[in-house]
Amino acid sequence: MNHNTLFTVQEATYELLRRLGLTTIFGNLGSTELPFLKNFPSDFQYVLALQEASAVAMADGFAQAAGTPALVNLHTFAGVGNGMGNISGAYMNKTPLIILGGNQTREMLVGDVYLTNVEETTLPKPWVKWSYQPVRAEDVPAAIMRAYAVALQPPAGPVFLSVPLDDWDKPALGSAVVRTVSTRVAPDPGRVKGFADKISSASNPVLIYGPDLEKAGGWDIGIRFAEKLQIPVLFSPFTERISFPVTHPQFQGSLPPAIGPLSKRLRGFDLAIVIGAQAFRYYPYVAGPYLPDGTELLQITADPNEAGTAFVGDSLLGDPQLALEALIDLVPDRPKRGWPSLRLPPLKISSDGEVLYADEAFSALDDSRPADTVLVTETTSNVTELLNAWGIAAPGS
Amino acid sequence: MNHNTLFTVQEATYELLRRLGLTTIFGNLGSTELPFLKNFPSDFQYVLALQEASAVAMADGFAQAAGTPALVNLHTFAGVGNGMGNISGAYMNKTPLIILGGNQTREMLVGDVYLTNVEETTLPKPWVKWSYQPVRAEDVPAAIMRAYAVALQPPAGPVFLSVPLDDWDKPALGSAVVRTVSTRVAPDPGRVKGFADKISSASNPVLIYGPDLEKAGGWDIGIRFAEKLQIPVLFSPFTERISFPVTHPQFQGSLPPAIGPLSKRLRGFDLAIVIGAQAFRYYPYVAGPYLPDGTELLQITADPNEAGTAFVGDSLLGDPQLALEALIDLVPDRPKRGWPSLRLPPLKISSDGEVLYADEAFSALDDSRPADTVLVTETTSNVTELLNAWGIAAPGS
Amino acid sequence: MNHNTLFTVQEATYELLRRLGLTTIFGNLGSTELPFLKNFPSDFQYVLALQEASAVAMADGFAQAAGTPALVNLHTFAGVGNGMGNISGAYMNKTPLIILGGNQTREMLVGDVYLTNVEETTLPKPWVKWSYQPVRAEDVPAAIMRAYAVALQPPAGPVFLSVPLDDWDKPALGSAVVRTVSTRVAPDPGRVKGFADKISSASNPVLIYGPDLEKAGGWDIGIRFAEKLQIPVLFSPFTERISFPVTHPQFQGSLPPAIGPLSKRLRGFDLAIVIGAQAFRYYPYVAGPYLPDGTELLQITADPNEAGTAFVGDSLLGDPQLALEALIDLVPDRPKRGWPSLRLPPLKISSDGEVLYADEAFSALDDSRPADTVLVTETTSNVTELLNAWGIAAPGS
Amino acid sequence: MNHNTLFTVQEATYELLRRLGLTTIFGNLGSTELPFLKNFPSDFQYVLALQEASAVAMADGFAQAAGTPALVNLHTFAGVGNGMGNISGAYMNKTPLIILGGNQTREMLVGDVYLTNVEETTLPKPWVKWSYQPVRAEDVPAAIMRAYAVALQPPAGPVFLSVPLDDWDKPALGSAVVRTVSTRVAPDPGRVKGFADKISSASNPVLIYGPDLEKAGGWDIGIRFAEKLQIPVLFSPFTERISFPVTHPQFQGSLPPAIGPLSKRLRGFDLAIVIGAQAFRYYPYVAGPYLPDGTELLQITADPNEAGTAFVGDSLLGDPQLALEALIDLVPDRPKRGWPSLRLPPLKISSDGEVLYADEAFSALDDSRPADTVLVTETTSNVTELLNAWGIAAPGS
Repeated sequence: MNHNTLFTVQEATYELLRRLGLTTIFGNLGSTELPFLKNFPSDFQYVLALQEASAVAMADGFAQAAGTPALVNLHTFAGVGNGMGNISGAYMNKTPLIILGGNQTREMLVGDVYLTNVEETTLPKPWVKWSYQPVRAEDVPAAIMRAYAVALQPPAGPVFLSVPLDDWDKPALGSAVVRTVSTRVAPDPGRVKGFADKISSASNPVLIYGPDLEKAGGWDIGIRFAEKLQIPVLFSPFTERISFPVTHPQFQGSLPPAIGPLSKRLRGFDLAIVIGAQAFRYYPYVAGPYLPDGTELLQITADPNEAGTAFVGDSLLGDPQLALEALIDLVPDRPKRGWPSLRLPPLKISSDGEVLYADEAFSALDDSRPADTVLVTETTSNVTELLNAWGIAAPGS
Repeated sequence: MNHNTLFTVQEATYELLRRLGLTTIFGNLGSTELPFLKNFPSDFQYVLALQEASAVAMADGFAQAAGTPALVNLHTFAGVGNGMGNISGAYMNKTPLIILGGNQTREMLVGDVYLTNVEETTLPKPWVKWSYQPVRAEDVPAAIMRAYAVALQPPAGPVFLSVPLDDWDKPALGSAVVRTVSTRVAPDPGRVKGFADKISSASNPVLIYGPDLEKAGGWDIGIRFAEKLQIPVLFSPFTERISFPVTHPQFQGSLPPAIGPLSKRLRGFDLAIVIGAQAFRYYPYVAGPYLPDGTELLQITADPNEAGTAFVGDSLLGDPQLALEALIDLVPDRPKRGWPSLRLPPLKISSDGEVLYADEAFSALDDSRPADTVLVTETTSNVTELLNAWGIAAPGS
Repeated sequence: MNHNTLFTVQEATYELLRRLGLTTIFGNLGSTELPFLKNFPSDFQYVLALQEASAVAMADGFAQAAGTPALVNLHTFAGVGNGMGNISGAYMNKTPLIILGGNQTREMLVGDVYLTNVEETTLPKPWVKWSYQPVRAEDVPAAIMRAYAVALQPPAGPVFLSVPLDDWDKPALGSAVVRTVSTRVAPDPGRVKGFADKISSASNPVLIYGPDLEKAGGWDIGIRFAEKLQIPVLFSPFTERISFPVTHPQFQGSLPPAIGPLSKRLRGFDLAIVIGAQAFRYYPYVAGPYLPDGTELLQITADPNEAGTAFVGDSLLGDPQLALEALIDLVPDRPKRGWPSLRLPPLKISSDGEVLYADEAFSALDDSRPADTVLVTETTSNVTELLNAWGIAAPGS
Repeated sequence: MNHNTLFTVQEATYELLRRLGLTTIFGNLGSTELPFLKNFPSDFQYVLALQEASAVAMADGFAQAAGTPALVNLHTFAGVGNGMGNISGAYMNKTPLIILGGNQTREMLVGDVYLTNVEETTLPKPWVKWSYQPVRAEDVPAAIMRAYAVALQPPAGPVFLSVPLDDWDKPALGSAVVRTVSTRVAPDPGRVKGFADKISSASNPVLIYGPDLEKAGGWDIGIRFAEKLQIPVLFSPFTERISFPVTHPQFQGSLPPAIGPLSKRLRGFDLAIVIGAQAFRYYPYVAGPYLPDGTELLQITADPNEAGTAFVGDSLLGDPQLALEALIDLVPDRPKRGWPSLRLPPLKISSDGEVLYADEAFSALDDSRPADTVLVTETTSNVTELLNAWGIAAPGS
């Protein structure tokens, strides 16, 4: 690239963001962010939020819906602080967010002047994969490239870059280097073989699908895998994504989010195969064994931390879709068999019409919604009723 | 105390909070906080906020207005995250807040289950003075006592305690030990003498009062000190508290928040005496010397960090009120002299009545307000007009 | 397991360590570690070091030589501090170490008494993959299991567990759950295909082998891959492991550890294929382009951080051995060709016998050493002479 | 200052260090520190240690002996790691150390190249008061000035500055600003009065002197205070400094370092006045009440953290010497009374001359030592015998 005139860090950054496809910026800005935003390019879009928490939440939703990383622009100091709640949520969601936080001008940072983001790399911890302030203005584009590479690799998640306000107008080193990285890994073939053997020799296994199977693009292979094995499919507790059609005859409900009840639900199965989920995301503490006597557990996850935090079981590290693709040819076809209909709890009828029950509400919404409705719900306690009422049968829902 | 029946950690805590006077709790709660709040005592008050940021902000305002520490109760994980912006503000305000964050039950924390506040003591950093999760349930009351002691000592500020939800129902060790600590320190008398000598021998000194003089209860001694010296009083940049009556003839305005202009404003003074302020809280970067040629700077502050971050000058560590009380007898009376009236900028009149200027608005509000009105303003760019219009002449305003 | 008598945390831990094969413990202990070590089982071995730094170094060497994780036992507080230097080295070496640090008794930790490891999980950062103190004594074995799982997964590295001294004698929950995890992942097959296409269409590519190829067990596949492609093999800068026989005709030397010279060395190659190395581990700063004009770079690494920190190039995440096994069938055989002998610098002869040059020393040692000699050297500046003199031609050397 | 030629960051730094009196540098260096040390000024002294731990230990001892801050120069990364054990010791000793750690050149830090001190400000935590890497080369001198100010203010302690190797040759902004700060604070006079009242009305109080009384220069006032009150003087547990002559009749021994025994030793006293010590530095856990029934505790300390961690009692924050000077005129003279001789344990005689007991050894050493002998001992378990044998009766010993 030939730069006849001064090529600034800001210009190099927009060029890089454009090449990375990061042209939508979610933010709530203040004075420390203005130098980044002046002469805002017309092919970029700035989605302004009224508070930083909302900026992060919108970016998280956008990235999940679009299946791409998203760029967030937060005000220095208390602004980054305001975003921390939803940054921790994005971390749990494994959403790749590149978060740029402003900071005062380098000239005055040693004196902790007004709007200094003191210990700027500490604040976002532990809820980002990487937290950094470039040690020179000219390293900002390279640091964004590194942030992008870190955010995308498995398990994906948010990263934080602090940029002093005077960096943007400094001369750039030139166009930023653009690099590409892997967004997924496959399981170790040797270990896949061991898992296949265990599945093949189990007499009464059960599949437990978690949110990361769908996120990995594993909806179709998940159905084929289940249909080949002809065994029940359950959802992991508190799954925020549906990885299997709830209308499929093999779908047999969600696991309860507590140690004792979950263990009770697995009685009679000699092997529980957890795919794309923590083992397990318990919520209330209810005592009991982690597994019933005679049940073993296998876990397939792309997240080493999920393998680390499992209470029981052996783990296979790798992308859930790739893992099922590697496994499916190594496990036997089992004969088709009949499935009990998943008995739904009867609709609660509010006798006097004064109390609106959750299932009534969901049914009414379901009757009138367009096919591509997006429902945003905060009512985790009614998810069972919601699944019953809406009968989700397509991925990404 | 004789406890015939089981005395729980929760009961010991309420007893301790009562003895510490922390009977107003600001919070936004979830399931992890319920065990703390069940059987909520009738002599306590829970001020519920709709989001954690508001809970912290209300507690900050309450503590500043009441001159006491305040208790905050935040939901685990993202809840603490939501509060971080205003926690950083409270840290800058030096407001003593005891912040209790919830956490999952100890039985399941090793597995990072749903609602676990992972690395719970890292999240609030660097904006709390102390961050801790007791290593046993029975240590919760002692940890609150320690948190209180840490929060109150100079410079005051927020502290964070993470409490797993099952701790509250565990047996207590007994009533908590109640301790008292110092809330201020006096300056080193030898160093006071040196400061007094410098002030006495200066030919044209100036006083620069910052927010911490008023917070320290130094309104009256500040007036007497200024009147004894018969020198001008300026406000430090961006002071969030007024430490001197703006109607006093010696009041000569606020310092601009930039290096060059501030230095220019101090031309002709051979000694700048900064009391209860950072030196200085600059905002935009405007190049220039920190001080004019021939000007020296003395700083009196209770905050070692403010002494550390000063760009220039010698510092005296101690409570501003106590420092002035120690200094006032060591500096000479100077003869009374006339003062130029602080020329106010003329009111901007909006010719067509369609644009409302800030000074019009503040004047109109001033005409109709009760004497004890509390104005909460976000418009830092109009503070000069506000001071002109309202003529604040009493402490705590 | 039937425990007729009290089964303690200590007993459950030794049982777990035995099942994990961690029966050699490297340490330097003090009073806070005694409860862990009393009644030391006869099938365990404690390798006592005189200072903690040595304990960590021995464990690192042992783990690397044995190809297994190793257990380290450090004294609380300053003891862990002493170990930090070599812990950071183990982190860079990707050596799986499970480090147990002592701590005072839980009863007194809230008061920071003598030998308290204050903020015990902060001290080892950022040089451990996980830092934790169990929130209850009974969670110690589960935390060790989790630590083991975290340490082993790619990229492997040290983990830190702080254990209060009174935890060891507390009743255990029962036998610890033993789990297994993946120790490597395979590259994404789709991305492998892309890499294969680039390699196939390159006209003059070069292989750059780094230390992690040998560590991954890729010595043989590395030779076969190179011989199939018939292209030169270079070593990455500062490689601490040799991944290719220096006696092989295709071996053409090591890359210099500086930007400009390294780039110069790659002139004429249109594709640099880096396997199992950072891109690059520069040491002195010597300006220059990262790559010559017309050269592209591919990197294969099991470490997402190495993909993140690369200055240039596209990265493929996965075990180097598995990656070459996946690639080898997708790249073309190239015809055998002759290779220039790697011209060695002539031996420096010390004319008067008073100065011993490095190559003389290494040659003399080589003449007299047994075949399985282990040379520990601190002289990074003479590695070239060492490689010349010793002609290493087997893996693990 | 007129700089006709280029004035570098290194030159500005040596000029600043000279003015601060930091002309002795303790260190263990490597390539990242060479630019700081080239053209080493002849009026500076570099004390080279063979490992970083020793460099820190020597600096700690030097600073304590000289009563001044000391400068430490550590190698990057593992070098700083090696120093952490003794840095934590210096933190506990409240020794003001200014620690400069090297780092790679700024040009390459974004790529984590060889010898990069990754997350350079995290590593020294939590054992430094401040951890910083200047955001520009030209801020190095100002950061050193800030580090000095932070290290010296009460409670003193180590601070850490990371300096990239290329910073030293960059142009300086000019001569560094030199500032002075307080090294001690006085107690709040109002609270002093309350403490004086409690002491005056106690019927049988006891003084407990800790190490910080002597460090504060309070040896003489400590004797006068004790003699005015005519009450026993005990040493706090594990005191590393003697704050009162062990030959003085009022000296009645050291408190045992365990909860139960210490409480037992205080039986009969209605008020324990702890000066310059933690309350208390317990070591083994021995159950018991913190204080006997009927005993109250007052603590005088310059360290807010010691006030925070006290298990019982009310605390007065301020320099111990200044506190006693403020108190001595407010407490009553009590009549002189006789004191029981502190019965020493009889000398253990080794019957056969083959075993050398500690008291024999200390006695033998005492007989032959010069008056200003410095004994460095690691044998904390024989401190009682040592005090008996040597009869320390002068401050600073």
